[in-house]
Amino acid sequence: MKPIPLGMVGGGSGAFIGAVHRIAARIDGQFRLVAGALSSDPARADASARELGLARSYASFDEMAEAEAARQDGIAAVAIVTPNHMHAAPAVAFLKAGIHVICDKPLAATAAQAAEIAEAARSSRARFFLTHNYSAMPMIREARALVAEGALGEVRLVQAEYLQGWLADPASGKQAEWRTDPARAGAGALGDIGTHAWQLAQFVTGQTPAHLSAELSSVVPGRPVDDDARIALRYAGGAKGGIWVSQVAVGQENGVSLRVFGTRAALEWRLDASERLILSPKDGPARLLTRAQDRSASSRTPPGHPEGYLEGFANLYADIAAIINGDVGPLDRVPGLDAGLSGMAFIAAAQASSARDGAWVEVAP
Amino acid sequence: MKPIPLGMVGGGSGAFIGAVHRIAARIDGQFRLVAGALSSDPARADASARELGLARSYASFDEMAEAEAARQDGIAAVAIVTPNHMHAAPAVAFLKAGIHVICDKPLAATAAQAAEIAEAARSSRARFFLTHNYSAMPMIREARALVAEGALGEVRLVQAEYLQGWLADPASGKQAEWRTDPARAGAGALGDIGTHAWQLAQFVTGQTPAHLSAELSSVVPGRPVDDDARIALRYAGGAKGGIWVSQVAVGQENGVSLRVFGTRAALEWRLDASERLILSPKDGPARLLTRAQDRSASSRTPPGHPEGYLEGFANLYADIAAIINGDVGPLDRVPGLDAGLSGMAFIAAAQASSARDGAWVEVAP
Amino acid sequence: MKPIPLGMVGGGSGAFIGAVHRIAARIDGQFRLVAGALSSDPARADASARELGLARSYASFDEMAEAEAARQDGIAAVAIVTPNHMHAAPAVAFLKAGIHVICDKPLAATAAQAAEIAEAARSSRARFFLTHNYSAMPMIREARALVAEGALGEVRLVQAEYLQGWLADPASGKQAEWRTDPARAGAGALGDIGTHAWQLAQFVTGQTPAHLSAELSSVVPGRPVDDDARIALRYAGGAKGGIWVSQVAVGQENGVSLRVFGTRAALEWRLDASERLILSPKDGPARLLTRAQDRSASSRTPPGHPEGYLEGFANLYADIAAIINGDVGPLDRVPGLDAGLSGMAFIAAAQASSARDGAWVEVAP
Amino acid sequence: MKPIPLGMVGGGSGAFIGAVHRIAARIDGQFRLVAGALSSDPARADASARELGLARSYASFDEMAEAEAARQDGIAAVAIVTPNHMHAAPAVAFLKAGIHVICDKPLAATAAQAAEIAEAARSSRARFFLTHNYSAMPMIREARALVAEGALGEVRLVQAEYLQGWLADPASGKQAEWRTDPARAGAGALGDIGTHAWQLAQFVTGQTPAHLSAELSSVVPGRPVDDDARIALRYAGGAKGGIWVSQVAVGQENGVSLRVFGTRAALEWRLDASERLILSPKDGPARLLTRAQDRSASSRTPPGHPEGYLEGFANLYADIAAIINGDVGPLDRVPGLDAGLSGMAFIAAAQASSARDGAWVEVAP
Repeated sequence: MKPIPLGMVGGGSGAFIGAVHRIAARIDGQFRLVAGALSSDPARADASARELGLARSYASFDEMAEAEAARQDGIAAVAIVTPNHMHAAPAVAFLKAGIHVICDKPLAATAAQAAEIAEAARSSRARFFLTHNYSAMPMIREARALVAEGALGEVRLVQAEYLQGWLADPASGKQAEWRTDPARAGAGALGDIGTHAWQLAQFVTGQTPAHLSAELSSVVPGRPVDDDARIALRYAGGAKGGIWVSQVAVGQENGVSLRVFGTRAALEWRLDASERLILSPKDGPARLLTRAQDRSASSRTPPGHPEGYLEGFANLYADIAAIINGDVGPLDRVPGLDAGLSGMAFIAAAQASSARDGAWVEVAP
Repeated sequence: MKPIPLGMVGGGSGAFIGAVHRIAARIDGQFRLVAGALSSDPARADASARELGLARSYASFDEMAEAEAARQDGIAAVAIVTPNHMHAAPAVAFLKAGIHVICDKPLAATAAQAAEIAEAARSSRARFFLTHNYSAMPMIREARALVAEGALGEVRLVQAEYLQGWLADPASGKQAEWRTDPARAGAGALGDIGTHAWQLAQFVTGQTPAHLSAELSSVVPGRPVDDDARIALRYAGGAKGGIWVSQVAVGQENGVSLRVFGTRAALEWRLDASERLILSPKDGPARLLTRAQDRSASSRTPPGHPEGYLEGFANLYADIAAIINGDVGPLDRVPGLDAGLSGMAFIAAAQASSARDGAWVEVAP
Repeated sequence: MKPIPLGMVGGGSGAFIGAVHRIAARIDGQFRLVAGALSSDPARADASARELGLARSYASFDEMAEAEAARQDGIAAVAIVTPNHMHAAPAVAFLKAGIHVICDKPLAATAAQAAEIAEAARSSRARFFLTHNYSAMPMIREARALVAEGALGEVRLVQAEYLQGWLADPASGKQAEWRTDPARAGAGALGDIGTHAWQLAQFVTGQTPAHLSAELSSVVPGRPVDDDARIALRYAGGAKGGIWVSQVAVGQENGVSLRVFGTRAALEWRLDASERLILSPKDGPARLLTRAQDRSASSRTPPGHPEGYLEGFANLYADIAAIINGDVGPLDRVPGLDAGLSGMAFIAAAQASSARDGAWVEVAP
Repeated sequence: MKPIPLGMVGGGSGAFIGAVHRIAARIDGQFRLVAGALSSDPARADASARELGLARSYASFDEMAEAEAARQDGIAAVAIVTPNHMHAAPAVAFLKAGIHVICDKPLAATAAQAAEIAEAARSSRARFFLTHNYSAMPMIREARALVAEGALGEVRLVQAEYLQGWLADPASGKQAEWRTDPARAGAGALGDIGTHAWQLAQFVTGQTPAHLSAELSSVVPGRPVDDDARIALRYAGGAKGGIWVSQVAVGQENGVSLRVFGTRAALEWRLDASERLILSPKDGPARLLTRAQDRSASSRTPPGHPEGYLEGFANLYADIAAIINGDVGPLDRVPGLDAGLSGMAFIAAAQASSARDGAWVEVAP
């Protein structure tokens, strides 16, 4: 199978998530990065493109969308790895050009931007993907399968956490600065990691929170965005849930976890032991599931040979490659526009609730 | 040192917490159980007393308080291990008789009962102790010392959990029945285990939540008390916190945990690894503290020889023995009337908030 | 039931294991310590006895055995908690006096002493018990039951470890000094903790090593006993095994562990997570067994309320009380003379093998 | 930087380690797989090459070595991922052709084959690399740095384990068959995973075992190679050590671990928590080191975003790329001929010792 030609917007040298997308696209050899508008600074864009050995470097994403769409060998898909406020414009441009979009999360910085993407995605023949990578990890996929087949019975309690400590002090550095700037990020911890927790809980349980009550905090004095968010959830189906995300939880590197309790059994998963899923039946001993029990075919090595973050990310790219190549099977497990809009609704509802001192508000469906 | 003569109210055969109190009182040989009103059923009381080899069995706590107070060799202290609604009457009787009271938590089933105890305790020459046993475990005491000496810097986030699964189905059996009966228990999970979480967080941080927002649920259909409680906290000093307690979290045997994040470091403790305290500085590797680092002199064996629940409980009894024998040093770490009233205020505030759909309410000081 | 009158030899103030035995005897209220020859120094013996509130203090164990045997209310059992070389003489004296002996491990410091005990035990109407306490912990008893009922299939591999670090430097202090003195201890790590590992492996597997090859080391320069022992085992039934014990493994507080691999499943247990047993079937996920799965009725609290070292020790005392009171049911799980002699044979074989540069030698049956 | 053209011998469709090498070579984009002799079956070789999109497919490695050496754009390096007995011939051919060799471990199936490789490697201008991948994982590299800088003091005890359960039954399937065939594998568990443990211990400690005593077992009846090996080690510098490897340890997926105890501190690492290194000082609490403490620059993501097996493998490829591109800095941490010969000496010594019933034998230097 010939690799799919891929482009990238953002991700110039020094970027974190751009490098991750590149590795994810490369691991299985199904994509080939050939074009980029890697930086809004043309000189830096060119230097980064040379460093990465890209065939074609563009000064702007507009130019790139137009040119690539016109080429016989143009890119079939583009990864958008810019700060949140810079997702919408390139997403719209590429979708209009008929080029599949692989966009980093959250969907956008504002509801207006999100709406633009939604409109473009709905009217394009190209597809829109959102890289909620944790939901592509093997044991998360197995967790979802277990819930779906009723292994937990009726879901009653859902707790998702995502704790980091790297923003415990006033921000400095490229990664921190835009993430704590309301104009570029839209929200703070809520958008950056809260949407991951939100998506993960829904992905695994297959259920939708209908109402929430949020306590957003800016723990670091003077920070213009939330850096800690504690959110209570009422699911449409009656389950109760919670999300706690923080970027001021010192000592936490990247503490993602999910706990689901049903009438018959419970599931627990933690990123720092990501190859393991603890299934605790109401009666009888807990079971330590590993990839030996995963039925999603989402790994490259035998159980016991640890895979992790990059492999999870690569699972999304592998599924996207399959979809682009015509296999729509993975569509039900690759996050897309709906996940993105749901995340935006979550952010908006949490901000509204917190502004009303924690009043319960509806999450827009 | 001669053992202190001890009495017990409640705790007849088949009781759970009565047996725990007896072991805790016995481990260090500082108490001798000599008298009891072990059951409200006189025949059962006598049979239980004989089984336990008690010197004196009484048909009622009133009779016992009067008789023991009159004896030269009467009991110096009494353990009250009845259901919550039966704490106040015996506590008042023994306090009035000048006999120290060691009462199981929570303080009472109602505010009125709590007030009776408070009045009696304040006007008695005898002391009132409340067995929030988890706060007497060695690594919790060390955690408190670390916070107090500033190892964490300023406390920012406090998360306490207490998850059980044993009430996931409609209650049956002695232990379950009174705990899910509003008249006898006062509250559900909130009182039974929520007060533990509440006390633990305050004990370790030395800080007081001023306001809370609660979501109480009766997950099991038809249950007349809460069996799951999710509570957001605003501490007086500015910290944010949360408490999550549940008795329908299937697969959880007794999942007590506490996480505290400060400006400089964080602490994490879990009952299922109770001999370990994880201290995570903002910079540098986390440290696994064990009893080798505990400075509270709260253990009987060298580090690495696991102690647990009963030993923690016994630490309270050891401190109470010291206090009765005239050493007031441990008074600052043994929970008493204040902890009990604080727990009642917590229950009341949580119920009020939940009744108002999670509105933030003040916790009575 | 009236408590059984108990005596103690050794265990004066400052002793470690004497205090442990006293707590173990006291936890369930089935023994009452009334007499002691707590120290070979009469003044210290008396002071310790007063401190402990003993009814009768003796200057020597001979005197104690004679006097107690003559009393109507004399002790029914005696705990011997002296250094190894001082086990035999009191054991023989009390056995001859018809008083049950509860002896700390290992059996003795020399084969000659062990033979004296054996002879006395065999000709006495009293019983001899040896406190290999780890084998009385609930999950170890459950492990044994699982192996016995065939849950592991045929046992193939058995690995036992006991690692400590407290003797990593030249010894100082009471506990260290006698343990590194060949005359008083007989062997070093091999006797002090190696016999625990040896007994634990046999207790759980129900199988006997027939031959061994040992590499004993005195890692600390100049130490006259072994402080590290690495032993390969060939079981009579064909299984292969290993024992590694060390007292110079810095950072290890008390690292006891056991792993057993069979044809159908494996078991893993570690003292630092002693309430958990990992059962790994050949196919399918591992299971985390807790006391909820233990069928030995060896605990005092519900699963999830951690018990540990002292409770395990107390399980032995509880079984001994039952046996003394006429219930011989627990005899098959309380270590006695056979376990003691097996431990001595293990020490002798390991020393012989190491002296012959690791040659395989037979372990005397 | 243009990718380095890479070839592969072995690794046709269905192969395990060939696929791993391909991902490892691809992750960082520094290699491009262009040529292969992927199978000894020409039709299968071609089909596999087409499937992988290789530019050039060869029917034999000889032909490939000759042809590629002759091309201007020929491969600069070749990955040899055949069974052990098929390492030597292609390695010699490519080394003679001046093409760098990246060979899977162990070095060879026989001493004669190993000698051929050694001779060819020593007389070639091309380099020889051996993929002992575990030693390239970040926390292992940090462990090595800690030992080298004296953080552990003098090394006293070294324990390495590698436990698998997948060969607990008579072998079936491609992977199992050649690994249990003496002609193709040379040794059983000893060569397949024992050499990993052997290399890992030396890599981290920087020390060389001088003598060993081995107990090799064929636990599965009728198996013509060892499937369990228990080996005691005496290091040249005085440390004692052990290696235990097994392929019949049911329930173990890939249990690699290393423990090193020194005079001042100890290190513990386990593959199933590979991003963590436990550093236990003689005094004071253990420290949980993560990649935040790793100084080897061996990772692609921030600490807390789990990396694992493939990334470790890729670290070797990244270092090899750097070396090929002229940076000899990584040479001291990439295993090569010496590691391979050391592994062969280990196998030979263990087999000799076991044949002499565990006699201590010298490991050829």
